[in-house]
Formats: sequence, C-alpha cells, structure tokens
Amino acid sequence: MYCQPQSQTQAAEPLNVAKIKSDFPIFVSHPDLIYFDNASTTQKPKCVLETMSTYYEKQCANAGRAAYTWSSQLEKAMEESRRVVASFLKTEATHLAFTAGATDSLNLVCQSYALHNLEDGDEVLLCPKDHSSAVLPWYQVREILKAMGKNIVIKHFDIHEVGDYDLKSIKNQLTPKTKILAMSHVHHVYGLEMEVAEIREIVGPEVIISLDASQSVGHTAVDLSSQGLPVDFVSFSAHKMLSAPGTGVLYVSKRVQDKLKPVRLGGKSKAEIVEGELSQTHSTVAELLEAGTQNIPSILALAEAVRYIESIGVERIEAHVSRLTVDLWQKLAGLPGIEFAPGIGICGCDRGWGIISFRFRQLSSMDLSFALDEERIFVRSGDHCIYNKEEAEQDDFLRVSMHLYNDENDIDQFIEVLSGCLS
Amino acid sequence: MYCQPQSQTQAAEPLNVAKIKSDFPIFVSHPDLIYFDNASTTQKPKCVLETMSTYYEKQCANAGRAAYTWSSQLEKAMEESRRVVASFLKTEATHLAFTAGATDSLNLVCQSYALHNLEDGDEVLLCPKDHSSAVLPWYQVREILKAMGKNIVIKHFDIHEVGDYDLKSIKNQLTPKTKILAMSHVHHVYGLEMEVAEIREIVGPEVIISLDASQSVGHTAVDLSSQGLPVDFVSFSAHKMLSAPGTGVLYVSKRVQDKLKPVRLGGKSKAEIVEGELSQTHSTVAELLEAGTQNIPSILALAEAVRYIESIGVERIEAHVSRLTVDLWQKLAGLPGIEFAPGIGICGCDRGWGIISFRFRQLSSMDLSFALDEERIFVRSGDHCIYNKEEAEQDDFLRVSMHLYNDENDIDQFIEVLSGCLS
Repeated sequence: MYCQPQSQTQAAEPLNVAKIKSDFPIFVSHPDLIYFDNASTTQKPKCVLETMSTYYEKQCANAGRAAYTWSSQLEKAMEESRRVVASFLKTEATHLAFTAGATDSLNLVCQSYALHNLEDGDEVLLCPKDHSSAVLPWYQVREILKAMGKNIVIKHFDIHEVGDYDLKSIKNQLTPKTKILAMSHVHHVYGLEMEVAEIREIVGPEVIISLDASQSVGHTAVDLSSQGLPVDFVSFSAHKMLSAPGTGVLYVSKRVQDKLKPVRLGGKSKAEIVEGELSQTHSTVAELLEAGTQNIPSILALAEAVRYIESIGVERIEAHVSRLTVDLWQKLAGLPGIEFAPGIGICGCDRGWGIISFRFRQLSSMDLSFALDEERIFVRSGDHCIYNKEEAEQDDFLRVSMHLYNDENDIDQFIEVLSGCLS
Repeated sequence: MYCQPQSQTQAAEPLNVAKIKSDFPIFVSHPDLIYFDNASTTQKPKCVLETMSTYYEKQCANAGRAAYTWSSQLEKAMEESRRVVASFLKTEATHLAFTAGATDSLNLVCQSYALHNLEDGDEVLLCPKDHSSAVLPWYQVREILKAMGKNIVIKHFDIHEVGDYDLKSIKNQLTPKTKILAMSHVHHVYGLEMEVAEIREIVGPEVIISLDASQSVGHTAVDLSSQGLPVDFVSFSAHKMLSAPGTGVLYVSKRVQDKLKPVRLGGKSKAEIVEGELSQTHSTVAELLEAGTQNIPSILALAEAVRYIESIGVERIEAHVSRLTVDLWQKLAGLPGIEFAPGIGICGCDRGWGIISFRFRQLSSMDLSFALDEERIFVRSGDHCIYNKEEAEQDDFLRVSMHLYNDENDIDQFIEVLSGCLS
C-alpha cells in the first residue's frame, strides 16, 4: 500500500484563494462557477491571456523567418520561453521540444524514438489503466515495426486496488528484453503520485522510462535535474497548467537525444536532401522535432503561466490542493452509498493531488453530473480516456479534479448539492 | 508560358481598406505598419480574437469529454466550425480533420496514407522548389518504407523560369508506377496559381494528388466539390488565413479515406485493443486523425475567420489583391537594378495572388529589409523554406506578400523607401 509521508509543504503559507480567483477572468465572468474538471483542462489567469492578446494586437508576425525586428524579437522570446520552462523543470532548454500537446508528445516518443530503436523481440511495459494517450501509441508503433519485420512485445503491469502501480507486477514482467517502460507521474483518474524512483530502482538504469506528467506539472515539483526524476522522456500539456491549448512539451534526456529521428519535417527543419538522401543537421531536440510555424502566442503564454505558478510557489499550490483533497475525501466518506475508485478514497493517505473519483450505489454518475451542472458545478463523468472497454465500469465514476483556485467553499457547496441529490 | 485570362472578378466591388483595417487591432496599435509578410502569417481581425477571448473568459472547458453544459456546447461548436470550414471549401465536414497546421497536415498525408499504401517501386512526383513542408516529409516516409523493405522512388519535376510548373517535365516523369503527385496551389515564393486541372489531365484519374493550399485559401476560391479541384488531399494553416496559429486543416477525398491509418492516438481516439491488437472504429477522417485535446479556441476562431472572409467575399479579396500585385509589379519594374524571381515579374500576367519576389543588383536583400524595417515595412528576406541549399541563391530574394488590408498607399510608400535606398 502506498502512503508517502506528507512533506514539509504542509507548513507552507496558505493561498489567498479570493486573490487568486480575481486573477482569472472566468471567475469574474462567473463568480458562482465551481470548476472541478482541472484534470481535463484548467482555467487561465489574466496574465496568460494578456500575453496572447499582446502578440495578436501589438506584435503579430511569424518568428525568426524574416530579418525584420518583430520576427527576430519573437524568435528570441520563444527561446526565452523555452528557457523559462526548462528552468521550471530544473533542466536545460536544449532538452525541450514544444509540441501540440501531451498527446502529441507521447506519440512522438513512439515515433521519434521507439520506431527507430526497438528491435525484434524487444519488450515495452505499460499500464493499461493509464490514459489512452500513453497506451495506444505503443500499439500503433508496434504495427509499423511489425511491417519492418520487428515483432515487439507489449506487456501490461497492474495497478493496485489502492490506486498506485503494483511494483511486484512490474518486477514480474521485467526481462532482459524490457527496453521501455511507460508510466504516469500522477494518475488522471486515481490521482496518486506514482513511485518513479522505486520503479527506476526495479527496472535498473538501462530501461528507457517515458513519463506522462500531464497531471503533475504545476501541481507538484517536476524536477528533471540529475537529482530529480530518473526518466528519459517527459510529456505534458500547457492547457492543463493554466495556459493555452495547442502547446505541449516533450523533454528528452541527454542519453537518448542522439537516438531520435524526425517525425514531422517542414519549414525551419534542419534537414537537407544530399545526393537524394535526407540529411539531418540539428543540434537540439527542438531543431529535430519542431517543424513549420510554431504556436507562437501559446508558447509565449506557457512561459507566462510558469511565471504565474512560480510567483505563487508550486509547493504552496501542492500543499493547498493536498489539503483540499483530504478535506473532500473526508466529507465524501460520510455520504450514503459512496464507492470510491482507487486513490485517496481507498488508501486513505494524508496527501492528495487534487483528483478523487467515486460513485454512488443509488444514483448514476451521469445523472449526478447533470444535477451538479444545474448548480454550475462542473465535474467529469463518463469517458475517462482509458481505452479498454473491458474496464468500462470505471467509466461510471464521477471525477473531481481541483487546482489552486478551488477552496473549502467549493467543497462544501459540492457536498451540499450531492447530499440533496442522494437524500 | 502561363497567363490565365483575368477572371470576371476584376469587376468586383472594390474593398474599403480603411474599414477593413479598422477591423484589425494591429493596425489600430500601429497605424503606420505596412505588413507585407502575409505568406508567412497574416494579421487577425477583432472578431477572430474575440472568439478566442470569449472561450477563455466566458466558457473555458474541454470539449465533449464531460456531460456538463459547457463541455457539450463546446463540442457542438467545434463540429459547427468544421461545417463552416467545409462549406467554405464546398465539401462535407466528414472529409476534414483539424491538425496543428499545414506542416502537420502535409506530414499526415505521408504518414497516414503513403506509409500504408505505397509499395516497392512506387513513384512519387514532387517539385523540389516547393515549400520544404511539402517536400521533406516524402523523404522521411521513404526512409521508413525502406526499413519495411519497400523502396519508393521520389522524382522531381521542374518549375519554369516564369514560375509555374513545367507540365512537360511532369509528363516526362510519369510512369505506370507514379502513385502520388505533390504540388502547391499557389507557390509561396513565385506567387502563381498552378494548373491543377491540367496536371490532373496529364497524370490521369488514378494518381493521388496532394495539394498544399497554404497560400490560396482565403485568397482565391478553393472549391473541393466534384466540379472543383480534382485532388485527394488539401493542406492549409489557419494562421495564414486571418486566424490563429496551432490549427490547420487536412481535407481527404472520399476515395482515399478508407485507406488511411491513424498517426497519433490518444484521448477520444476511436480505437480499442481487442485481443492485444489495435482496432479502429472511426467513421470520419476526424475520428481517425484527431487525438487528444484539440486547440478549441483556435478551431472556433477559424470558423470566425471564414465568416469574416465570406462577409467580404473571397472574389472581392482576390480581385483586390490581384490589382495590388499588378500595380506593385509595374512600379517595381521601373526601379534600377531590379531582378525579378519567377512569377508575375517574369511572366507579366494581368493577374496576381499577392506574392512578388525580387532583388536588386546593387544592394543585398538583407540590407534592404533592414532599411525597410526602420520604416516599419515588413517584408521577407532570407529563408524562404525551400530545402535545397543548392538553390541557395533564391534565398537572396525579397518577398512581398499582400492581403486584403494592404492598399496602394502601402505600395507607394514601399516604392518610395526602396527608391531612396537604391539612389
């Protein structure tokens, strides 16, 4: 069972949620909104929106393709964004490529790395209860490799009833043929932080680990320094960390970066055709993986979102959301007929990452979500992006996912509406 | 030589450019701006920006993943956007996938179609002087096919000195093995509309044609009805048609749509793992090719850009830009030392699509672009996204590219500054 001790962040200075809400135009437009679907997408602070407006209204051009000032200034600003994001992750900008989102990043791992480095008989370990963006691309690349005469084996490891990975199951599946392990940092339905360091310990130093950090970046420290998470790829989306959709990040570790091949080519690609053959001349991950016009305003906005998060402090956000999660769990536990999905509701940790999934024996989650919707309380029901239809009963969970602008009042109102529906 | 007769659109009612400029916040911020880099990216009208702000400030959620009203309304709005774009192209929404941009679309043609349908010995025809996003992906897919034991042949066809494709060269390269032809609709440096119908006539009905329409959508009618352009794939970017970066479109014809395979998989993918094998259950191109959270505000904005263009009329825009192109060419022709790139400057048509490239014997294009920059006249110099370094002398052209908000005053001021530099 999984119960990390609460970190010292419990002592962090509490957030001023009223002040934070005033930073988000959506709560000015809808003061009564209780937004509990943050694992799906987050709201955006004014500073992020202003960064994009400034691009569109004051200095709109393509970046770095022309010699005029706006274009070259925008190119510099994009590289500054990359440095800001890198510094937030305690790594270097040369390790980061901007992508179209976490799904794009996770697919790029398969197409730029796995497709060109896996050999016949190699094995990939993954958890079928992870997000389908972290699972399905491996089946896709397996098909292409098969057409190359390379049969790779995808092996599944389990998740405990409490919501974290079954480390024994990883150990049991491991063989000398295991080349890649794909995992989540914080699970998108069960909401537990997975044990990256322990899993690295189990699989040993050689196995390539691809981490889906979509639910952790902005919620908890994602440290990619040599003292941090011992992984090779990290994928996440800007829109789940207070910024705009259409942009994601892929981190690539130093030891694998020379083994990647391009996936998309086009304008700005460092590629030539030399004597009829494609020749790469890139020196960074970005030069290899980014092609065509980038999503300039969204990339500039991502840096602004990082600055906003840093101005509050990711430790304070983590402590705030953790307290809320424990509070929500304890209040939910008193409701009649509740059945918790794996996660804090089962393991009973004193720590949480904002996500709790549950259902009630007497009322369908879909009906409940409609009733909540009428009170402008937005929670997720239905499709949780787990591909396996055999696990469809999971789809009946309600999921609450919180972020820095949620507070105890949101929870109390939510519990009140739920109680009304259940009585 | 290529000289289509001027269409009847010459008689279209002239645009009120002052009114149009007032629709674009950038010209309110910078009344002195002469933006001549529209082939790289365009400015955005207020209605497009407001559509995005409304999403962020009034109704920000993920689309169609949850049961609450905002989410389901956004999903409906996204599908309405698809219908608006389809209607603009005189086709059905089921043929369209939203992508991350034209570069993404052009790469998807290679990865979703060519990778799974080309056989050993098959030939692809393309023009090496087209945009690198329309050229390099074919070399990339050739490498992957080679690893599958399928050697495909990429053959080059030429461009005339006047700037249109050399149809004889296409005819000469054509063999029974020719399976795909890749081409531009309007060339991004030379600015001529290419002869799609004639090329279809030459290659016959079976060859798959992939059209890069990045420079034509929004400038001239792109008609994908059965009476329109006889092509199988059409790629373009929203940001080059008055909307936001991060979104593109890929049109797929009915006859090829069942031959595509997915490229990116993730949330919302219509895919399952059945007995360990990937199984697709899509019924539209979008369900096959779109995965993960879409760029919701940018997709909604694209429909608004289409409505804006339609409110003015693409024929009027075409006539306006054509008149400007002819005017600019005639005034440039009087300057000392001018050397035109292929295009209207060489062929001397009475029609243009907004793009003219040229240089001067006595002064480098880079130096000129710096001088123009000081007068806030933004033109492209340097990298024109043609991959072939052997054609590097092309890189020394200045490119002017115009759109609906440019006018004769812009041209006259530009000519005045150029004359000053040259004297």
